[in-house]
Amino acid sequence: MAKQRTRFPSDMLVLDRDASVPMHRQLYEKLRADILAGHLKADTRLPPTRLMAEDLGVSRNTVITTYDTLLAEGYLESRSGSGTWVATLPADAVTARNAVGRTDAPSLSARGNRMVNQPRDRTIPGHIPFHPGYPEIKGFPFSTWARLLKRHTRYSQEDLYGYHWVTGHPRLKASIAEYLQASRGVDCDAEQVIVVNGTQAALDILARVLVDEGDVCWMEEPGYIGAQNALLSAGARLEPLRVGPAGWTLDDDTLLAPRLIFVTPSCQWPLGCVMRMEDRLRLLQVAENHDAWIVEDDYDSEYRFRGRPIPAMQGLDKAGRVIYMGTFAKTLFPSLRIGFIVVPPHLSEGFKRVASNTGHYPSLLLQAALADFLSEGYFATHLRRMRRLYSERQKVFVGLCQRQLGEWLSIEENDAGMQLVGRFLDDIDDETLWRAAQRQGVNFSPLSRLFFKNPPDHGAILGYAGIDLKAMREGIACLRAAFIEIEAKRAPT
Amino acid sequence: MAKQRTRFPSDMLVLDRDASVPMHRQLYEKLRADILAGHLKADTRLPPTRLMAEDLGVSRNTVITTYDTLLAEGYLESRSGSGTWVATLPADAVTARNAVGRTDAPSLSARGNRMVNQPRDRTIPGHIPFHPGYPEIKGFPFSTWARLLKRHTRYSQEDLYGYHWVTGHPRLKASIAEYLQASRGVDCDAEQVIVVNGTQAALDILARVLVDEGDVCWMEEPGYIGAQNALLSAGARLEPLRVGPAGWTLDDDTLLAPRLIFVTPSCQWPLGCVMRMEDRLRLLQVAENHDAWIVEDDYDSEYRFRGRPIPAMQGLDKAGRVIYMGTFAKTLFPSLRIGFIVVPPHLSEGFKRVASNTGHYPSLLLQAALADFLSEGYFATHLRRMRRLYSERQKVFVGLCQRQLGEWLSIEENDAGMQLVGRFLDDIDDETLWRAAQRQGVNFSPLSRLFFKNPPDHGAILGYAGIDLKAMREGIACLRAAFIEIEAKRAPT
Repeated sequence: MAKQRTRFPSDMLVLDRDASVPMHRQLYEKLRADILAGHLKADTRLPPTRLMAEDLGVSRNTVITTYDTLLAEGYLESRSGSGTWVATLPADAVTARNAVGRTDAPSLSARGNRMVNQPRDRTIPGHIPFHPGYPEIKGFPFSTWARLLKRHTRYSQEDLYGYHWVTGHPRLKASIAEYLQASRGVDCDAEQVIVVNGTQAALDILARVLVDEGDVCWMEEPGYIGAQNALLSAGARLEPLRVGPAGWTLDDDTLLAPRLIFVTPSCQWPLGCVMRMEDRLRLLQVAENHDAWIVEDDYDSEYRFRGRPIPAMQGLDKAGRVIYMGTFAKTLFPSLRIGFIVVPPHLSEGFKRVASNTGHYPSLLLQAALADFLSEGYFATHLRRMRRLYSERQKVFVGLCQRQLGEWLSIEENDAGMQLVGRFLDDIDDETLWRAAQRQGVNFSPLSRLFFKNPPDHGAILGYAGIDLKAMREGIACLRAAFIEIEAKRAPT
Repeated sequence: MAKQRTRFPSDMLVLDRDASVPMHRQLYEKLRADILAGHLKADTRLPPTRLMAEDLGVSRNTVITTYDTLLAEGYLESRSGSGTWVATLPADAVTARNAVGRTDAPSLSARGNRMVNQPRDRTIPGHIPFHPGYPEIKGFPFSTWARLLKRHTRYSQEDLYGYHWVTGHPRLKASIAEYLQASRGVDCDAEQVIVVNGTQAALDILARVLVDEGDVCWMEEPGYIGAQNALLSAGARLEPLRVGPAGWTLDDDTLLAPRLIFVTPSCQWPLGCVMRMEDRLRLLQVAENHDAWIVEDDYDSEYRFRGRPIPAMQGLDKAGRVIYMGTFAKTLFPSLRIGFIVVPPHLSEGFKRVASNTGHYPSLLLQAALADFLSEGYFATHLRRMRRLYSERQKVFVGLCQRQLGEWLSIEENDAGMQLVGRFLDDIDDETLWRAAQRQGVNFSPLSRLFFKNPPDHGAILGYAGIDLKAMREGIACLRAAFIEIEAKRAPT
């Protein structure tokens, strides 16, 4: 026989059913902490998922999700035919990778522990980037961008190098307002535009300014993990606003009354569906009934290939309860780190203090260059080119997937967006596929990670916008190999 | 007689003595809100400061500070010989400038209200910039900087334009670690360096990760307003760690036990004193006794003109309880928006999630250029030049002030820093002087704004580092005119 077994001490696992942290995260954190602290020793066999689920009174999917995450991170290992075991960690991992270490340092705050324990969607640099949200980067007009940057990289005016314009450079605010009015039907002037350090910064601000600890937020399920993290970090309790191919479930009576509703109506993340006008009006009514805020994240609405664009909910709202947010991560490039919030007029003054006090505003040099990029027409030209390119890439990508992956994956063209969700024809676990794909050298995002309360759907969120034909073919071949690998493993059982 | 008087309804003012928000801020917010909401109408005469103070049971200084702020912001007006009155606001000011407006929108969270109500130290662009914290900008090597930026403004590697390196570009982290070890005696490796979006971002993160709402923090008094704001926004209760010319009062038994202690030991903001080695060791002991964190803000320690530099407290700490933070705002320029935190090794993994979830990380393009700026020696050269320049400027500035402002102001050379505190020889209110200075076209920062609990000292915090001789002379002439103006007003009474 191989290694000696250690009994699994299942009585030490107590989950808090009323906590705002989803059960699978609680279970993940407890198991991980116990492994790192040495309470769960290497070569302890974990109970089978079904038994563990019964013991804890949670769904089996919760346990599967948890085991898979810990397997992916190397805390657990799967031994062929004999289940799941605590892995032997490198000696320094226990101290170095431990969020709550064994120094004499004080402990983090409860809030800090929430913040360090939010999951992070990792992408592996160098792998074929089917991870969603990546625009075409090689096609970006870098020489123009370099010229605009250089134009401002000199001592021209004090206001570009000092401590001014905490809610954004006035010219950039004006350009954004103009663009949003014309392209997105957003009803705003420059003063209402708050330039921030990217989408996550916007979420980090709004989660705190709009909700208190313990407040209920309706969060799309499946929905953007960054928004989930920001809301949970701020102490919110998430209630699932279910989204499926048919749209948003706006009449779920089981949900607690919300203080805030987070939606991506122009192109739902990750499903890509668009909220119909009548649902937008209904959602506004629902929010009014609850006196709730709506946060409308319009992260990639520019990429709409067919059909008429539907104006932003912000433009339909007369009460000032919709806070609109957007980003240049998808239209220029992610590491630019410039996004924006549009606040109702009565909040624009207060947000100066919020920006100033949180420090969530980006370099004025970049803002000045971006203002020129918008006002001199480069932005519109680049968008037009990208819209055409992504539309073509989507067709090619779907065709290739259908031909190469059709045995396992169902995927269809969509009217909008930069990524598609492929559904499995068979009962495949997306985290298992993800691990196989990592070994094959390709990134994608598992759909199940975007569920926080209900049993997750499994699928592959596949970004196609930033990938040329050659890389697309290579990546799909890698995915094919990953499917074959997990199929081979499943066969013997 | 001129306008009709409206009675002041003093019974509607109730301040909360136990709140963590200082009394003068509470009073400011209540008066401002009442004016904006129309409860306090234009042409209402406010009670004299002494009566108001007695009515409310607060110090007269509290009332003076509040009136002065509201006068400066145009909510109140002072009528010669007849006291202080509610001003007539432009019609749109009441709606547009109101942080809590009269729309149908939901209210902000309690936390949000704290965040929008933190004061903001305004500087007026175009005025002679004696505001503190401004480095020399014209002398910055912009052509080098433009060349380094251009080097990275092309599609070279995926990792510079995607969603990677949330705690900083690896080369920048390594350069910062190397520099801090060599120059500041900080004990760290690259993994411990978390690159953030400036000093305020560092404070915004640390306030949340280290303390919970209601936790006590020792904050230097007088002390950095940005740190006060971040801590108060996070719900902390501030206790004053008094600092005077003789140093830090580390044995104040009246202070509640802290969870966190904020200090600027290398060059106290704003007084410029340096914490002696024995006090550093004592403070570490105090923190250990309370199991408290220490946040060491080393914002401008590079500018030390005489004497041996004292190593950072972080390097003296063996327990991992000191979190070190710094910025490139003073060494390059403020709007670069790049700062850093050095965390104990056991927290570096957790801070990846914090950075990812708060979005508090700056553009990778700027980080790559900054890494080159450091590693290719430009940073060291620039610092040497600036240290020499600021040392000369300080001498000239002090000489000019002594000659031109000696009737009112006492100011002396200091061993370190980029600003000096001038003390008044007479009983001058620094907010009154500030308003007169604004009319004369010169910025500075009133000392009293940095007090949050005890009766404030008054003085002028004067930045001299970013100002050439011509502007220095002009600015000092403006200050002289401001002193003469307020002296003339005081004379008749």
